[in-house]
Amino acid sequence: MTKLSTWKNFQKNFLNFSELGISLDTSLMRAPDNPPPFMQKLFSNAFQKMQELEKGEVANPDENRMVGHYWLRNPELAPSTEIQIKIKDTIKKIQNFAFEIHKGVCHPQKSDSFQNILLVGIGGSILGPQFLQNALVSKRDRMNFFFLDNTDPDGIDQVLESIGNRLTKTLTLVISKSGGTKETRNTMLEVRKAYKDAGLNFAKHAVAVTEDNSQLYLIAKNEGWLNHFPMWEWIGGRTSIFSVVGLLPIALQGIDIDDFLGGAKIMDEMTRSTEVRENPAAMLAWMWYHVGEGVGKKSLVMLPYKDKLLLLSRYLQQLVMESIGKEKDLEGKIVNQGLTVYGNKGSTDQHSFLQQLREGPSNFFVTFIEVLKDRQLESIEVEPGINSGDFLQGFLLGTRSALFEKGHESLCITIEDIDTQTLAALIALFERTVGIYAFLIGLNAYHQPGVEAGKKEAEDVIEILYKIQQHLKTNPGQQFTAQNIADAIGETEKEEIVFRLLLRLTANGRAIKIPHKTLFSSRFQKN
Amino acid sequence: MTKLSTWKNFQKNFLNFSELGISLDTSLMRAPDNPPPFMQKLFSNAFQKMQELEKGEVANPDENRMVGHYWLRNPELAPSTEIQIKIKDTIKKIQNFAFEIHKGVCHPQKSDSFQNILLVGIGGSILGPQFLQNALVSKRDRMNFFFLDNTDPDGIDQVLESIGNRLTKTLTLVISKSGGTKETRNTMLEVRKAYKDAGLNFAKHAVAVTEDNSQLYLIAKNEGWLNHFPMWEWIGGRTSIFSVVGLLPIALQGIDIDDFLGGAKIMDEMTRSTEVRENPAAMLAWMWYHVGEGVGKKSLVMLPYKDKLLLLSRYLQQLVMESIGKEKDLEGKIVNQGLTVYGNKGSTDQHSFLQQLREGPSNFFVTFIEVLKDRQLESIEVEPGINSGDFLQGFLLGTRSALFEKGHESLCITIEDIDTQTLAALIALFERTVGIYAFLIGLNAYHQPGVEAGKKEAEDVIEILYKIQQHLKTNPGQQFTAQNIADAIGETEKEEIVFRLLLRLTANGRAIKIPHKTLFSSRFQKN
Repeated sequence: MTKLSTWKNFQKNFLNFSELGISLDTSLMRAPDNPPPFMQKLFSNAFQKMQELEKGEVANPDENRMVGHYWLRNPELAPSTEIQIKIKDTIKKIQNFAFEIHKGVCHPQKSDSFQNILLVGIGGSILGPQFLQNALVSKRDRMNFFFLDNTDPDGIDQVLESIGNRLTKTLTLVISKSGGTKETRNTMLEVRKAYKDAGLNFAKHAVAVTEDNSQLYLIAKNEGWLNHFPMWEWIGGRTSIFSVVGLLPIALQGIDIDDFLGGAKIMDEMTRSTEVRENPAAMLAWMWYHVGEGVGKKSLVMLPYKDKLLLLSRYLQQLVMESIGKEKDLEGKIVNQGLTVYGNKGSTDQHSFLQQLREGPSNFFVTFIEVLKDRQLESIEVEPGINSGDFLQGFLLGTRSALFEKGHESLCITIEDIDTQTLAALIALFERTVGIYAFLIGLNAYHQPGVEAGKKEAEDVIEILYKIQQHLKTNPGQQFTAQNIADAIGETEKEEIVFRLLLRLTANGRAIKIPHKTLFSSRFQKN
Repeated sequence: MTKLSTWKNFQKNFLNFSELGISLDTSLMRAPDNPPPFMQKLFSNAFQKMQELEKGEVANPDENRMVGHYWLRNPELAPSTEIQIKIKDTIKKIQNFAFEIHKGVCHPQKSDSFQNILLVGIGGSILGPQFLQNALVSKRDRMNFFFLDNTDPDGIDQVLESIGNRLTKTLTLVISKSGGTKETRNTMLEVRKAYKDAGLNFAKHAVAVTEDNSQLYLIAKNEGWLNHFPMWEWIGGRTSIFSVVGLLPIALQGIDIDDFLGGAKIMDEMTRSTEVRENPAAMLAWMWYHVGEGVGKKSLVMLPYKDKLLLLSRYLQQLVMESIGKEKDLEGKIVNQGLTVYGNKGSTDQHSFLQQLREGPSNFFVTFIEVLKDRQLESIEVEPGINSGDFLQGFLLGTRSALFEKGHESLCITIEDIDTQTLAALIALFERTVGIYAFLIGLNAYHQPGVEAGKKEAEDVIEILYKIQQHLKTNPGQQFTAQNIADAIGETEKEEIVFRLLLRLTANGRAIKIPHKTLFSSRFQKN
């Protein structure tokens, strides 16, 4: 076997946080024992900024918002009694609602009890619940879960088909912080139609999770939906997993949300330490800085060796890349920062991209997640004295060695067992790491200005599509090239967009394409 | 909206391959009209090498193997009558077996018919089937699918729990080319026990897919499994989707495998052209070379705007990174090549890592997949004249513009509809692209020497674990530190590995840890 770090060095760099049964091993990161002098000041500043953030300073200056996800697991910390009460009342409301659903007090229009949940949302409003449901699924679950996270008609049909006549016993949660997210609105309308087609009143099966007085809020209120739960402007989508967004689904699943909040609270306490080596989040942030030279030079490859953590990589991809991928720093200087995250799970990925990790360019570092507890039941031997879990650990340790041999750094987080509490702690650990790392490199981690650009461009496309259809409709029987139409609707120079929209209208029977000399000179008319 | 390429430039760079309804748009790649002069020679060489490969030359010199996946969809091309017959006979055998399963001629031990399939494999033996099943799932499916793709005890339990008493009607396919893959062997043993616990004879529900005379082959033969299908040494795992590995599961699902093979055959014919601009695979390979300067400088971000293509990114991650991620080129020179692939699906990812793509470092290019056909059913309006699918296309085109505005290159592949044939064509397109690109940069795309290192290291870990347990067993009641044991079993300097193994033995009740001054001086003894 490859020689790893020395036993002495390993002991120095294997930090055990026994309260949660979590350890962090930085021995293969080739870092000095302590952050170099120039970083001391960066850390002092980052710790101070995190304290201010937790106290309710406007930590998201671009949107003039506080950043409050740490209050969710310890409401006493919130900067006002009003917020404290909101948080506490909402937790009670979630627990009461879950109780009513489980007991059949709140039941579907034409059935005794809800058996299934359909979550409708996108991005920060649904990836967290998907990750949690995948990680915590068990035969003790009170309900079956389905997810709709896109505006893809095919995808919507497929999920609705798989629900089938179980729709009668299905509770739909529509989650959108702003209440105006188009993908979620579209899917909600499609789902509403499915209930209607099944002879059911959607409102009697629907719950909204959104900010007060949002579009979605008003729809839910006007139509008399079963319930409405609040979102608050001081919670961002990607850090909303400890708000109603994450809590309501797991409460309905039958999980004790106090355990979940409790795990995060303990991790929060640990990661408030201003001693870098006693604070696992500060250690991680330092490692990210160290290995990526403060500019994300190396990608973070997530390799949890546990099937139930498969979606952790996607969850962190969102949390990290949306927080750290920024054009400007807090002072407005162009920095084009980023920290790329990808990965799936070990040892499965060993039969996939691990080949490149070992032999290809040194453009990454790995974060291994090791879970010590194998399973609830007894294991069989697959070789004398050896079981399946032994191989899982063997592959983790083996891969780690094989990468180290070639000079590739890796972190290893070891967890005693994955349960509600430790899962929450793991999430809280990465939330705080992102927070500290962002302050180390001088970023606002809590806005997403780049997302707006794509939305705005999409709205323009929709407007062009509307105008194309109007043009075809008002000129029935007439044939036009893409260029004709672009000119006619005042979108000269947008011929390509017009052409692409026409191709799709044609493929869906909404226009007719008449072949011409070239594809580009094809004529189009209303179908 | 952002100004894209000019209409003239777009027309020049939107290549339509009408036979399959597939188009490739390179207009936003900022590439010249034709490959630069120095690449002409590289392309001539690559085309010649691809021809030789298809004729049966030893294109994988390190393993002294032919590379035969193109023969699978056109057996006439195979270099010997023997291989031609093997391929044709196997396709017939698959079709016959699927027929027997569907008709109940081949049925479970204690039931009339098989209703479910459990696939057991890892990497190239299962990711392809997972991708296909996800992409082609429909209410017409003849069977329900379950997958086990790891040696994680918890993961195995979870899948077996979800199958529950349906195991009685479940056919298990165990897929391992070499027949000696440990993860697959372990899972097979766990599954076998589950059948036994349910009072069933595993052999009456099991099918092996493996090379003749492999370990798995011999087990299947000795135990009298239902059937055995061959793998051949000239098919690599990551290019095995058109072999039994991919064909048998979809045939059992109820899909016409002739359609699937046919789609790939048409794409193969197109991508044999030695005119770069008439060959979509050559165009893609050129674009990869152009944007990554022949050394993979930019990551390939896959964004299919279609839920059913969610696993395409993972599939291509395996295909590309395992093929292109190589330490040495064909001449043995150290090159540390690679081409990183990640992504999930649009527009969902727009609410995740797209923030970084737009604002962060220029270290990527995007491959958009646009599917023109929305769904089988009629769409409802979500706004006047606008439906859900319009938004999906709007987000694709909007994101593409928003990225282009910031200088980020993207490709767009447009497909009329995703069905069995076009899905196969898409896979064949990327297979050929990888083949051509590898020859352009002088690599063997068909071996995976880096994977062996991790396996070897893992075996060493398992051996140490075995020795630790022997030591504890032969010294019952005695307490040892990790260091004591490392010394005693002759693994001095492996204290860390010994320590980590002891922690896991403890967590699973196989050893007892007696606390001491520090975690590292803990004492361990047999439980």
